[in-house]
Amino acid sequence: MKQSQLFTKTTREAPKEEKSVNAQLLIKAGFIDKLMAGVYSFLPLGFRVLKKIESIIREEMNNISGQEILLPTLHPKKNWEVTHRWGYKEMFKLKNRLGKDFSLGWTHEEIITPLVKSFVKSYKDLPVYIYQIQDKFRDELRAKSGLLRGVEFLMKDLYSFHRDEKDLDEYYEKVKKAYLNVFERCGLKAIITEASGGDFSKDFSHEFQVLAKTGEDTIIFCPNGLALNQPKGHFSQNEEVFDKKIKKCPVCSGNLQKEKSIEVGNIFTLGTKYSKALDALFTAKNGKKEPAIMGCYGLGISRLMGAIVEVSNDKKGIIWPKNISPFDYHLLPILSGNKELDKTVLEKAEKIYTDLQNKGITVLYDDRSQKSAGEKFADADLIGIPVRLVVSQKTMENNCVEVKERNKDKVELLGLEKIADYNF
Amino acid sequence: MKQSQLFTKTTREAPKEEKSVNAQLLIKAGFIDKLMAGVYSFLPLGFRVLKKIESIIREEMNNISGQEILLPTLHPKKNWEVTHRWGYKEMFKLKNRLGKDFSLGWTHEEIITPLVKSFVKSYKDLPVYIYQIQDKFRDELRAKSGLLRGVEFLMKDLYSFHRDEKDLDEYYEKVKKAYLNVFERCGLKAIITEASGGDFSKDFSHEFQVLAKTGEDTIIFCPNGLALNQPKGHFSQNEEVFDKKIKKCPVCSGNLQKEKSIEVGNIFTLGTKYSKALDALFTAKNGKKEPAIMGCYGLGISRLMGAIVEVSNDKKGIIWPKNISPFDYHLLPILSGNKELDKTVLEKAEKIYTDLQNKGITVLYDDRSQKSAGEKFADADLIGIPVRLVVSQKTMENNCVEVKERNKDKVELLGLEKIADYNF
Repeated sequence: MKQSQLFTKTTREAPKEEKSVNAQLLIKAGFIDKLMAGVYSFLPLGFRVLKKIESIIREEMNNISGQEILLPTLHPKKNWEVTHRWGYKEMFKLKNRLGKDFSLGWTHEEIITPLVKSFVKSYKDLPVYIYQIQDKFRDELRAKSGLLRGVEFLMKDLYSFHRDEKDLDEYYEKVKKAYLNVFERCGLKAIITEASGGDFSKDFSHEFQVLAKTGEDTIIFCPNGLALNQPKGHFSQNEEVFDKKIKKCPVCSGNLQKEKSIEVGNIFTLGTKYSKALDALFTAKNGKKEPAIMGCYGLGISRLMGAIVEVSNDKKGIIWPKNISPFDYHLLPILSGNKELDKTVLEKAEKIYTDLQNKGITVLYDDRSQKSAGEKFADADLIGIPVRLVVSQKTMENNCVEVKERNKDKVELLGLEKIADYNF
Repeated sequence: MKQSQLFTKTTREAPKEEKSVNAQLLIKAGFIDKLMAGVYSFLPLGFRVLKKIESIIREEMNNISGQEILLPTLHPKKNWEVTHRWGYKEMFKLKNRLGKDFSLGWTHEEIITPLVKSFVKSYKDLPVYIYQIQDKFRDELRAKSGLLRGVEFLMKDLYSFHRDEKDLDEYYEKVKKAYLNVFERCGLKAIITEASGGDFSKDFSHEFQVLAKTGEDTIIFCPNGLALNQPKGHFSQNEEVFDKKIKKCPVCSGNLQKEKSIEVGNIFTLGTKYSKALDALFTAKNGKKEPAIMGCYGLGISRLMGAIVEVSNDKKGIIWPKNISPFDYHLLPILSGNKELDKTVLEKAEKIYTDLQNKGITVLYDDRSQKSAGEKFADADLIGIPVRLVVSQKTMENNCVEVKERNKDKVELLGLEKIADYNF
């Protein structure tokens, strides 16, 4: 994409009322725009990041046999009365012109359970794993953390239905691994903590936490247990449920650490709470009617985008992990003021832009003619694409481009023929 | 996908309260589920169709330089008071816990205009073309037409901002062509009609109409002018604005025709109505501040899915056009009851299933062992995938599969090696 055509622009001033690092940087760099507290628009750059995260999540959910659907946002009151959750304080309620009551979806057990009930009759129809990617709404009074705590936010929610607890437990472990894959592919190291079920469940639940100095949560964990995909081997816990007398890991006896963190995912075993309330019964092998055993698995997509910015930035701006950067490369032609030389630099840059795209590499091409080298560099650092390519009179003399990775100081020259294969 | 794993099932009975052909067929075939009047869930098959339509629309919008974003559903009251549309009768309104007023987005001029204002300062920043694909909400009392008239529905809305009317008019014609491309790729022949601006505009607008016996609209048109991409050459009009004395086409003098139709798209020139009200001014070449000239272009994605089913079905079920079918092929192994022979049939079918997928062809594989040949055929006709492949003892004797296109009666045998290249 040519940067001159991007309708957004960077700004040097952070909005005064935005205190969070993620909102400040994302707004300054033109990824998002604030409509009101907790409600943001995703602009072209931000939309691209959302879609990349979405596509990673979709792949991981499909890998564990998830079937994607799209449930409504508008819910009838009756479904929520049955489960005694119509009174939930963070649920938005509204009426239509005839006075009929609706709520806006903040979770979907009340909708997915009757839907599954209509198709699942026998144990032979189980298990089923169903997910969606959809806007959610919560009447949140503390929406002061940018994308981390939204009133309207994008979420992936997966629901599983099983014939017995063993089957649920096995799938629950598969979801854990899929979640760790998602976070790893998004450049995050997540720690799994045990948590209470909260409003969702009397059963157990787990949270996925990312260490961040700006985090709202505090977790206590064993650093030896950080290795991904081995969550069971070590110890981690949310502060609230931690017995403060324990200073050593009960598994390996190492010293425990206490750090601020951001919750990026939350998974629950629901048992039969909703299947009983909503009458989602199936005929078991023994001929008896039994309620399906359920699990539910949430992952905030816009929240994840915010968390990534919170942990991956410096004073100059955002540092996107490779897999979710809005573009692979940021290409900057730097002009000298000499018209003839500049013309050659621009022609070369244009050719590199076309060649890279033909190889399936996405490029943000800073073709803005009015901007100084300093402005272009500052914008590139703020926007945070992982690899910056500079074409100038100097680089052309060597038939090279200058390559700089966003998270490193080193600048190196690279032969033109090697750009596409550059491994950052 | 293996049909045994699809959590939805077909049903033979149409829901009693659903009168529309699209809702009856889509529910019976397991594409959608009705939560309440005008509010539907999109199940795995339906979700795949939605995504295919979305991707066609996205390509066509990107081709006319549209930049994709995602705007909020929840809107603050103040934006709608400025334009005097807070009172719009079909707009859902709600309050948060603190008593603050919000509405649910049914269109987005009030949100996009201030957003564009914050980035566009000079005529050099214009034009800009911005679109989104998002759920919309309308407090619709006549939601009795399935996906054709939704309370919650998926829509693509594009907004354009220009420095002068000439530039808008040129872009408006580009959008017309892009819309005709979308409908053609979705297997529909759309007729462009002139219409009044309705609630949107005192400027002119156009509707895209598809002929359908079950349509809610009536249009009068010249059959000679049906050729796509030549809308200006001939005559078409909505009934309401048609002078009934005219029986001949004013362009070619041919006899006019009057038919029922379904509106599948609507485009408007908005002029400066919203840019004036919301103060979206830019500095023109002459140094003066001027309001941007706007256009807006709607296309209902879920509505389009409904319209396609209305015009493309028979007594047995849906007939999906190739480009938006949930799968390319429907593969049916037909068993004889002889265990040994059936085993060979299933092995062959499984191999065809794998081979086709390896070639990038999507297949719904009816691996359900309990279903009779009759049930499988009936389900295939109801679901409506354009090409049905049958593997049976008989076809295997000839080292063939039986191929039948959904919209043709002819059944032919095709050598196994030719399946992937079969051109339907």
